[in-house]
Amino acid sequence: MANSLPELNIGLIGTGFMGKAHAFGFNAAQRVFELPYRVVLHTVADVTDELAADAARRLGFRHATSDWRSMIGNPEIQVIDITAPNAWHKEMAMAAIAAGQHVYCEKPLAPLAADAAEMTAAATASGVVTQVGFNYLCNPMFAVAREMIEAGELGEIRAYRGLHAEDYMRDPEAPFTFRHDPVGGGATADLASHALATAEHLLGPITELMGDCVTVVGERPDGRGGRRKIEVDDIGRAFLRFDNGATGSIEASWVATGRKMQHDFEVYGTKGGLAFRGQHLNELQFFDTGDGTGRQGFRVIEAAPEHPPYGNFTVAPGHQIGFNDLKVIEIRGYLEAIAGLRAEPFGFARGHRIQSIVELVQRSSRERVWLPVPA
Amino acid sequence: MANSLPELNIGLIGTGFMGKAHAFGFNAAQRVFELPYRVVLHTVADVTDELAADAARRLGFRHATSDWRSMIGNPEIQVIDITAPNAWHKEMAMAAIAAGQHVYCEKPLAPLAADAAEMTAAATASGVVTQVGFNYLCNPMFAVAREMIEAGELGEIRAYRGLHAEDYMRDPEAPFTFRHDPVGGGATADLASHALATAEHLLGPITELMGDCVTVVGERPDGRGGRRKIEVDDIGRAFLRFDNGATGSIEASWVATGRKMQHDFEVYGTKGGLAFRGQHLNELQFFDTGDGTGRQGFRVIEAAPEHPPYGNFTVAPGHQIGFNDLKVIEIRGYLEAIAGLRAEPFGFARGHRIQSIVELVQRSSRERVWLPVPA
Amino acid sequence: MANSLPELNIGLIGTGFMGKAHAFGFNAAQRVFELPYRVVLHTVADVTDELAADAARRLGFRHATSDWRSMIGNPEIQVIDITAPNAWHKEMAMAAIAAGQHVYCEKPLAPLAADAAEMTAAATASGVVTQVGFNYLCNPMFAVAREMIEAGELGEIRAYRGLHAEDYMRDPEAPFTFRHDPVGGGATADLASHALATAEHLLGPITELMGDCVTVVGERPDGRGGRRKIEVDDIGRAFLRFDNGATGSIEASWVATGRKMQHDFEVYGTKGGLAFRGQHLNELQFFDTGDGTGRQGFRVIEAAPEHPPYGNFTVAPGHQIGFNDLKVIEIRGYLEAIAGLRAEPFGFARGHRIQSIVELVQRSSRERVWLPVPA
Amino acid sequence: MANSLPELNIGLIGTGFMGKAHAFGFNAAQRVFELPYRVVLHTVADVTDELAADAARRLGFRHATSDWRSMIGNPEIQVIDITAPNAWHKEMAMAAIAAGQHVYCEKPLAPLAADAAEMTAAATASGVVTQVGFNYLCNPMFAVAREMIEAGELGEIRAYRGLHAEDYMRDPEAPFTFRHDPVGGGATADLASHALATAEHLLGPITELMGDCVTVVGERPDGRGGRRKIEVDDIGRAFLRFDNGATGSIEASWVATGRKMQHDFEVYGTKGGLAFRGQHLNELQFFDTGDGTGRQGFRVIEAAPEHPPYGNFTVAPGHQIGFNDLKVIEIRGYLEAIAGLRAEPFGFARGHRIQSIVELVQRSSRERVWLPVPA
Repeated sequence: MANSLPELNIGLIGTGFMGKAHAFGFNAAQRVFELPYRVVLHTVADVTDELAADAARRLGFRHATSDWRSMIGNPEIQVIDITAPNAWHKEMAMAAIAAGQHVYCEKPLAPLAADAAEMTAAATASGVVTQVGFNYLCNPMFAVAREMIEAGELGEIRAYRGLHAEDYMRDPEAPFTFRHDPVGGGATADLASHALATAEHLLGPITELMGDCVTVVGERPDGRGGRRKIEVDDIGRAFLRFDNGATGSIEASWVATGRKMQHDFEVYGTKGGLAFRGQHLNELQFFDTGDGTGRQGFRVIEAAPEHPPYGNFTVAPGHQIGFNDLKVIEIRGYLEAIAGLRAEPFGFARGHRIQSIVELVQRSSRERVWLPVPA
Repeated sequence: MANSLPELNIGLIGTGFMGKAHAFGFNAAQRVFELPYRVVLHTVADVTDELAADAARRLGFRHATSDWRSMIGNPEIQVIDITAPNAWHKEMAMAAIAAGQHVYCEKPLAPLAADAAEMTAAATASGVVTQVGFNYLCNPMFAVAREMIEAGELGEIRAYRGLHAEDYMRDPEAPFTFRHDPVGGGATADLASHALATAEHLLGPITELMGDCVTVVGERPDGRGGRRKIEVDDIGRAFLRFDNGATGSIEASWVATGRKMQHDFEVYGTKGGLAFRGQHLNELQFFDTGDGTGRQGFRVIEAAPEHPPYGNFTVAPGHQIGFNDLKVIEIRGYLEAIAGLRAEPFGFARGHRIQSIVELVQRSSRERVWLPVPA
Repeated sequence: MANSLPELNIGLIGTGFMGKAHAFGFNAAQRVFELPYRVVLHTVADVTDELAADAARRLGFRHATSDWRSMIGNPEIQVIDITAPNAWHKEMAMAAIAAGQHVYCEKPLAPLAADAAEMTAAATASGVVTQVGFNYLCNPMFAVAREMIEAGELGEIRAYRGLHAEDYMRDPEAPFTFRHDPVGGGATADLASHALATAEHLLGPITELMGDCVTVVGERPDGRGGRRKIEVDDIGRAFLRFDNGATGSIEASWVATGRKMQHDFEVYGTKGGLAFRGQHLNELQFFDTGDGTGRQGFRVIEAAPEHPPYGNFTVAPGHQIGFNDLKVIEIRGYLEAIAGLRAEPFGFARGHRIQSIVELVQRSSRERVWLPVPA
Repeated sequence: MANSLPELNIGLIGTGFMGKAHAFGFNAAQRVFELPYRVVLHTVADVTDELAADAARRLGFRHATSDWRSMIGNPEIQVIDITAPNAWHKEMAMAAIAAGQHVYCEKPLAPLAADAAEMTAAATASGVVTQVGFNYLCNPMFAVAREMIEAGELGEIRAYRGLHAEDYMRDPEAPFTFRHDPVGGGATADLASHALATAEHLLGPITELMGDCVTVVGERPDGRGGRRKIEVDDIGRAFLRFDNGATGSIEASWVATGRKMQHDFEVYGTKGGLAFRGQHLNELQFFDTGDGTGRQGFRVIEAAPEHPPYGNFTVAPGHQIGFNDLKVIEIRGYLEAIAGLRAEPFGFARGHRIQSIVELVQRSSRERVWLPVPA
């Protein structure tokens, strides 16, 4: 009966870092979880036949193509998985949606929120199931945090502080890349998006914000011997108001010298506090005012089988999962959504919302005014 | 010849927590440092003769009085040390200044910056030497941080993040106190003042800011069986611009459940990064991009004799100094300033400036606009 | 040409936790690394046809069998991978070796070192390539540590301290299992083996030791309503002498309440120190006496692409790998050894040596004497 | 009535680091605590009149002398406080005891335990109150740990691990000092003494041990241009058996490169675990198996007024005390013992016991046998 699982055929566009991570994730998901489908890596598309063929071999796809359009509408392929450059996401996704294929798209949906809105509307209209890659949210310790917040273990939530700081653009001689593109580029888009997604994942909707986006490195090598002016920000900050009454802030930076994964958050409620440090993704710190006098303190909860789905990866507590495992969890959720077993974990509507908030942060910073965040 | 040190006679007003800390600090300073004076605890003032006499005995003062004014202009007393409630600071300080006595005053100088301005102007005009109690700044690791910043060890400074979070007002049933007074109360005044002082201590002048002050607990027991509306903030945040070109933020909270001393900062420069955690006041974390490939990381520098004046407290590295020792360092600096050996470490002008910035944060928050910070 | 990679067919015995981890690892290794083989999951053996068929489906094997002997000598299968209970390892491995098949065996090789010796001798005589599962050693940060030690970055090595503490046997009501078997059971065998393997991996051969093994829980439920006396140890300690002149100690415990993965080590040399905490498997702490005065401290090096093969898992530093990824690295090393590209990373001889040292620790403890460790 | 407190006059011998710390401590204790005496710093003795006079001025003593014997039997002086070099402790203490004066003596009582035994016997016979300086034990977090152990909060205690590692003898060119004296020198005497004292303070009597003492640096500069052979150990380890049934180990080192204050301990019981790190002397980590499923973890308890006598130093939690404050606590305890308000906190008998155990560790190491520890 197990063999009677329906097949789900994947068509992957893009074979770079994220393409490889997706292929890896589909395979791993089948071994880690009891999925509702037997996943088939059907076809992979890259820019030349040779690259595609090589990727197919390495990544385990049955077919290869240099024409991603050939996968659109192919009745054998149920899911189009887009890891191509951001500028192409919209065209690819719209084509797949029009053909009735489910779409899995790396973040951001498109450089502009307006385009992401169109993509979301199309997906909603067609009824296909979508997923945007926000894998930090799949951390089991985030699930614990959310469960604690929702169950009232922290009491009424009052305050939030979120970060996402790295240092990969620290060096002013690091050359101009697509991440510096005036359309869709910058640290706020690249990293504050993660901090904002985590904030809403934990506390619910943001209702108002005040942004502060700063360009630190004014020009960079253009890769052709000259220099190019930089218009995007290197640091993005925001004050936040949440629908649940809490207030907070987030900050993102890609020039935070020494930081590699400072995706941190702190949550403060009337009865407890939480702290997460991205540097230790298998830990959640919890302060409980219910602990005895003289015995209170932030306790470091280590990821364990009690924190699903950690136990699918290893039966022993404290053995630790890694970044790639978060992608595996993301894929599990997406496949269950396709099977109708749960709602979309983080579909196009959520992806679009985060991009809209990112643009509000940027606009608020330019105009130096607080802005409401539409529901 | 050592006995020929001039005497410096102290008149202390107030015998509560800070009064005790001052008396303790004056005594300890004489044993820890080679001071330019022999300090004499001359007279202590409290509200009744009995309380004053008891304090004199406990704290080691020669005389006691229930009339602080009797110390003003007493030619035997060179320093008036004010640890009385904030509302009385101005009257006391103005009287001492008028009498040509040096003034040591706990923070804040007065509930309103305008009053602090008057006090500063008077002190400047009279030429007395002043000190405001901001003892966190006396941490030897802060001196290391400032030295590194000034020497260019971090390269050009780009970004700053500061915190001062505790949780002593977490409980909504904690009653109304002077800290909740609409005039001069609130977390921004009480704690953001520390975060702002540290920020300017390390990076130099703030030039512009955007505030975000939030009242979390709307009413509290009034201590007489009723409840009283709270007008002051429980959380204060600000975006910052510095004169050196860096940008940053600070946040203060007294409802950060679980936090006891989150006086933290992070500094990011082109060549390095620093992080300090108030929970570990004897450590400074330093990331150096000059470290070898694959060998880089934030190193935890433990306070040692190489970080003056740590070595005055203990000759052994890693043995750790405490909060009270910071007060001892503050007193040493003040006495050296009185002796003309150095500039005022943190005189009334600095205290007034921090209060002005606090009020700008509060006003910016109310008006929801960025505000310039006068030089 | 990529497709011209030779196939390597795996026959897996056992489908429990480690069987699953191996199947997962073989798949992942092909996506993470450029392997010298195309790995084929050929046949999986379990105790019944039904269980084997189900495992084949879940884990992606082509064939299933309830008779592991049917894989022995099958010319289509080059590698026999043993994850069955420890008591069966020897029979299975000896059969595979006799048939000229490579053998991958989970630790321990056999409950008794004498049996492991026989297995090692047989493997050596036959020339097959062997691997014992000691995946902690595959941590990229261990490679950094070893490289630093060998390159003299720490100067002359003087001292070592190793731990492996968990708490899964803390509860005296946890029932008797195979881990409590008087033959081959106990914390020293189960966990000190890891601590000893890490010690030799980093510092080279141990030459002498003094053991201290302690039974803490004297009897446990026998699972049939009665209680059973426990003869094996819950804690194992040893003083160590190393061939390089250093001295040290290790400790293992499975009753260390609260510890989940305290696989820690510290190394002290004339010029530097290292510390590793198993709770943070992506970090290595390094103290360098060459750092400037007042700037010294243990720096926390976060795993990054500079620490191969971390970069095969993710191109971004600080994103973190997990426990299962260590198994993937182990498999890569084994396949390269089969292809003759490198020596066996941790073959039967090494596995046997660790077991011998474990038995010496136990004997030393019983006899209360220091014992030499044969070269 | 407060002024009617009896005076207690101190005669201090030695004005080096510890002499200064004692003088500082006596003064501070009077301000921090409600003592049973008014302490008078009566006389200080140093090797010349000039040094003594200078010390008297700096440290606040009324009188100075270059003849410590002149203080012996002086009816105005009730306490003889010995911070002179170890070799003189016995003569000084025996003289004071014979004169019926209380004796406060820095550790070790004498280079040899046999001498310490004599001193202890004399003190006991005469009925004077004694104190040996073991100030780590005065840490309020140690009191919490002991209270938790005694109250059964950790269940039955099973295992212990203690450390005291620093690196001040790391450099082989650091010259020979009294700490290298074959009589009474070495890391085991200097530092394992602390680790052993902490172990017994927390778990009660050690009953049996196996030592492992190692000389790492074989010779050192003799300070006169030549080199001198080193006979004492640089590292001392021991396996331990406790009277309460627990087993454990300690390790001391003064060549642990990078360590400044690794006075750590871990305690494991059936119901909980504790961990203390000397680097963070204001924290105690506590794991409670009674915490909810999925909510367990080591919690970091920060020193607070709930942990007496922390609140005597500062009313605010998390503000941190330092090393010198531990000495103040030690003095409070001693004065209360003199007043008959409590038993000697750590008198000569305890100091002698620790030295005896140190010598047993050394002898056990030389003879390579387990040795019983007399009750």
